[in-house]
Amino acid sequence: MFEAPVQKLIDELARLPGIGQKSAQRIAFHLLHVEETDARRLAEAVVEMRERVRLCARCFNVTDSEECSICRDLRRDPSAICVVERAQDVVVVERTHEFRGRYHVLGGAISPIEGVGPEQLRLRELIARIEPEGVTEVIVATNPTVEGDTTALYLARSLKPLGLTVTRLASGLPVGGDLDYADELTLGRALSGRREM
Amino acid sequence: MFEAPVQKLIDELARLPGIGQKSAQRIAFHLLHVEETDARRLAEAVVEMRERVRLCARCFNVTDSEECSICRDLRRDPSAICVVERAQDVVVVERTHEFRGRYHVLGGAISPIEGVGPEQLRLRELIARIEPEGVTEVIVATNPTVEGDTTALYLARSLKPLGLTVTRLASGLPVGGDLDYADELTLGRALSGRREM
Repeated sequence: MFEAPVQKLIDELARLPGIGQKSAQRIAFHLLHVEETDARRLAEAVVEMRERVRLCARCFNVTDSEECSICRDLRRDPSAICVVERAQDVVVVERTHEFRGRYHVLGGAISPIEGVGPEQLRLRELIARIEPEGVTEVIVATNPTVEGDTTALYLARSLKPLGLTVTRLASGLPVGGDLDYADELTLGRALSGRREM
Repeated sequence: MFEAPVQKLIDELARLPGIGQKSAQRIAFHLLHVEETDARRLAEAVVEMRERVRLCARCFNVTDSEECSICRDLRRDPSAICVVERAQDVVVVERTHEFRGRYHVLGGAISPIEGVGPEQLRLRELIARIEPEGVTEVIVATNPTVEGDTTALYLARSLKPLGLTVTRLASGLPVGGDLDYADELTLGRALSGRREM
């Protein structure tokens, strides 16, 4: 056991994802030895994020205003919505510069094992956007996992009757990858999704 | 780029040792989704540690008073001092329950490459303790690295003329280890340090 204030910080750090006891100790002693202003800046960044960040009233992306910067951007095409599981996925899709529509953050994926059903996700909020925003295409960008696939299927079934085009991100070989290293599931998807050249 | 308050927190987290961009993102979004009191408790633990923790006036271990709990403990034997590189090493030695003396934290090890000479370490402070505390043995528990070994040698040379017994932690095979996995340096030390049974 370390002196109380050090141990307390180690305990708090060890609760973070991916941080074990050893890393927590290392970080705590690092914070003990850096300039006091550096340590304070970290603490303030945590508090400030919690005080300022909330969810976009329209798409549930993170934002520091009523609506997120993407929903506020008039150059974005409102007729296409890209549906993602979590807010951090918005940035991942944005980095491709391939999508110019808006987003919708579901807040997770359907997972019977973890007790997450469609009613725990922001599906009603998605459907409510379709008409007023003039949405014609929904691109489902949930993860290529059992849960993501199940959610995609559920979305397709709910949205297609509304006359929407529902598409799903292609699954297949990662660019720059090696056939040798591809698992059979990915390779199977790449085969069944093959395209004429 | 994430919304400003999120990105700022990610940047601060990514400055911590062992935390890359990906882990920083994961931790930031974790802190965004936990209860606000949980996030605040982490921030407060950082600030509180910096406000309350200082270095023991005697041994330079971390403490929240003038002297650390070990130096204040009257049951500890003042005639033996265990010299360690960093404050976190005190807890490591304490866990063995094998040492009942006091400590001295050098604040590092001699490293010509990193420009750390004996004058950057708390050696003068160690020598100043010898007489008033009636020290008879100094156990050098610096790391078994080139820097730790150099520091140990330097300490032995400085302290032996004062009539002290200077010992060094044994180097050898880790308990529970496998000969097969021992590197040649460790095995060499284990051989040269062999003891009659």
